[in-house]
Amino acid sequence: MHHPLSEPQHHAVIVGGGFAGLYAAKVLGGAPVRVTLVDKRNFHLFQPLLYQVATGGLSPGDVSAPLRATLRRYANISVLMDEVIGIDANARRVAMAGGWMEYDSLLVATGANHSYFGNDEWRVHAPGLKTLEDATDIRRRILYAFEMAEKEPDPEIRRQWLTFLIVGGGPTGVELAGALGEIANETMRHDFRLIRPEESRILLLDAGSRLLSTYAPELSEKAERSLVKLGVRTRTGVRVISIDGTGVVLQAVGGTERMPARTVLWAAGVQASPLGAILAASTAVQLDRAGRVVVQPDLTVAGYPQILVAGDLASVMQDGQPVPGVAPAAMQMGDYAARLILRRLNGQSAAAPFRYRDKGSIAVIGRASAVASILGMKIGGYPAWLGWLFIHLMYLVGFQNRLLVFIQWGFQYLTFNRGARIISPSFTPQGEAGAWPGSEKPSSGPARP
Amino acid sequence: MHHPLSEPQHHAVIVGGGFAGLYAAKVLGGAPVRVTLVDKRNFHLFQPLLYQVATGGLSPGDVSAPLRATLRRYANISVLMDEVIGIDANARRVAMAGGWMEYDSLLVATGANHSYFGNDEWRVHAPGLKTLEDATDIRRRILYAFEMAEKEPDPEIRRQWLTFLIVGGGPTGVELAGALGEIANETMRHDFRLIRPEESRILLLDAGSRLLSTYAPELSEKAERSLVKLGVRTRTGVRVISIDGTGVVLQAVGGTERMPARTVLWAAGVQASPLGAILAASTAVQLDRAGRVVVQPDLTVAGYPQILVAGDLASVMQDGQPVPGVAPAAMQMGDYAARLILRRLNGQSAAAPFRYRDKGSIAVIGRASAVASILGMKIGGYPAWLGWLFIHLMYLVGFQNRLLVFIQWGFQYLTFNRGARIISPSFTPQGEAGAWPGSEKPSSGPARP
Repeated sequence: MHHPLSEPQHHAVIVGGGFAGLYAAKVLGGAPVRVTLVDKRNFHLFQPLLYQVATGGLSPGDVSAPLRATLRRYANISVLMDEVIGIDANARRVAMAGGWMEYDSLLVATGANHSYFGNDEWRVHAPGLKTLEDATDIRRRILYAFEMAEKEPDPEIRRQWLTFLIVGGGPTGVELAGALGEIANETMRHDFRLIRPEESRILLLDAGSRLLSTYAPELSEKAERSLVKLGVRTRTGVRVISIDGTGVVLQAVGGTERMPARTVLWAAGVQASPLGAILAASTAVQLDRAGRVVVQPDLTVAGYPQILVAGDLASVMQDGQPVPGVAPAAMQMGDYAARLILRRLNGQSAAAPFRYRDKGSIAVIGRASAVASILGMKIGGYPAWLGWLFIHLMYLVGFQNRLLVFIQWGFQYLTFNRGARIISPSFTPQGEAGAWPGSEKPSSGPARP
Repeated sequence: MHHPLSEPQHHAVIVGGGFAGLYAAKVLGGAPVRVTLVDKRNFHLFQPLLYQVATGGLSPGDVSAPLRATLRRYANISVLMDEVIGIDANARRVAMAGGWMEYDSLLVATGANHSYFGNDEWRVHAPGLKTLEDATDIRRRILYAFEMAEKEPDPEIRRQWLTFLIVGGGPTGVELAGALGEIANETMRHDFRLIRPEESRILLLDAGSRLLSTYAPELSEKAERSLVKLGVRTRTGVRVISIDGTGVVLQAVGGTERMPARTVLWAAGVQASPLGAILAASTAVQLDRAGRVVVQPDLTVAGYPQILVAGDLASVMQDGQPVPGVAPAAMQMGDYAARLILRRLNGQSAAAPFRYRDKGSIAVIGRASAVASILGMKIGGYPAWLGWLFIHLMYLVGFQNRLLVFIQWGFQYLTFNRGARIISPSFTPQGEAGAWPGSEKPSSGPARP
């Protein structure tokens, strides 16, 4: 594809507008380099708050920032809504549906998705939480389950509708479980006439020996105590061996066991974006087990110094440990990669290897409770929760988003209400009837007269 | 379906949670009557602000209120998320997927949709604006058109992507056109590098002789002047005779004419909910040309005094004119119908016929401009706009929604930015690749090497 603004200037192409790509673009904004940011979506997604969209606390728009508006002030940056479907590392160009685009530097930052460990057929029964679709899909399933329970005359099936299983006890699983506990026990409390939402069973399952295994053990215990207060039961040391529409089969120490549930959410496993494999096909770079690109200490691809990989797609070891796939690491990598490009343009010497500065981790557990490890301190409860609020508001992109999220959190805190509790329309059966606002359907008669 | 809470108490069933159904439910809340509100959706939709969702100014959650939360305080009201698919007027029962439900009083208030005048195949090319799906679909199309234009090398096709046709010059068409003018001229102004959004062509077409034909002629003129200032061209006296993916064919005085455009929005025609026809099949009640139920002066169905129809589904004549299908009329009908039910329960004499009290009409045209006819006064410009803001905030359901909308309007007014400018994920091709957050797709190579 011939780029109409082509100039002899250095052309940096960034693929992916997540934390790594967006932070890299901001560093390159205003620099003497032409930048093209390519993303399949027209917005940056603030993934750390995605679970709040999934649980009806926030709207999709609150955790998204249009990429064009965010980068508008940098005249040297073009945003292209497109998909990179091929990389020709030797010719220094990437392929999109419309054709090829050449680059001088390429930053690949297309992230990762959840992994079903080879059981992709589970996806339909147990959605993960990585994209806005995932979030609205999970929201639909949660709200719909309560609606179905209210209508269900069979007590056994009703019980299945009121059982929620969350697979994976990392931060996402813990945050989802905490929000679900709050929904069942507070938000929905007086909304139904026939069921009692507070009788819901919420189970958080993990294959390891404790929740939040990357946190300190005392934080895992604190998190578990907070979850129990919200009515969430946790089970560790159990492995999911099958999932269908009415439950899961678990492998525990004592053998296998079927657990009936109509809502199963997936918060386990990591699978890198397929662009990693496309890059490997062109550069022979090594991929790790999760499909992440094993990069050099300066985030470049071996033999192709003009190609950098950042964020969840990059596999970086530091002090014998992998750099975690978290937002702060992605921001730092994006920042590092962009500065490396600028150093080279300025003819400066090679940069020091990338180093992830771990400022801490934090996970929120329902209302006014969180666990955090910040600068070596381990804290829990209300102070950790306040810290969580502050950090997330600070990093949220766009002042308007910050204010809107702040206000909605205020309401939620004071009233337990969750404003975005709409079952997204696309869940209703598609077709002519789906277009009606009321509750009718063109039909010649009742289904069961 | 046997209702587990069945009691000898009078059972009022309301079908549809729009303005008529919701306002009726609120009147019946706390009264000595058991109420079941049935809606296919779990939320009430504030339709007058739907065009702002379609144009990226507000999020779906901002204009929706969960029905359960809204009616939670009334212990005598049950909300059922279900579809009424049959009515047996003689047996006094309605059919849903789960079976029959008996009623003592029935209020049918399932509204109306747009009509393609028998050309339903146009729907796919020219979506109307009645539901949240419609709004996010239109938002996708508008934002996507600019993205496609930015990528398009062929100037003729680029021009098609930058042409927006709105069919129907009523309030919805005028409001959509005004918002589009503002998007092209202000919001998007600095967002693109290759195209100039302010060169978009926005055309508002109407078959009649003037815009806003139900308003006073001087307001039509004011509206047209405001639209022209926003870069919108209007054409009256033209009839659409076909629509496809790349434009429309118009019938004007001088003959037919093809007008190329990649985005066509439909804001014409009214077609009542199909539940009207289902009701007519059971009661032999008359339907008008648009499928609305011709009701008695007290909104009941002839021969079936326990069945009432309210809102856009009801065809009511007053002083030789039809009561318009607007939110205030629906609210007043819902209120009237509920009071009629209560009067009967109290053994009071028959009520006076329903009378619509027209407090005025108002349509907003982009930023800081509107036309209004309020209590007989005809006003335009800034005062009308302020009135519009005030009235819409006042009637919006839920204090939280009011505050959120107010803040977003404030930002939009000050910065021209529209926060909810996300191209909803479901627009991306479905399937495995759709689940990825970045811009990649698993593929063996480029589409056009």
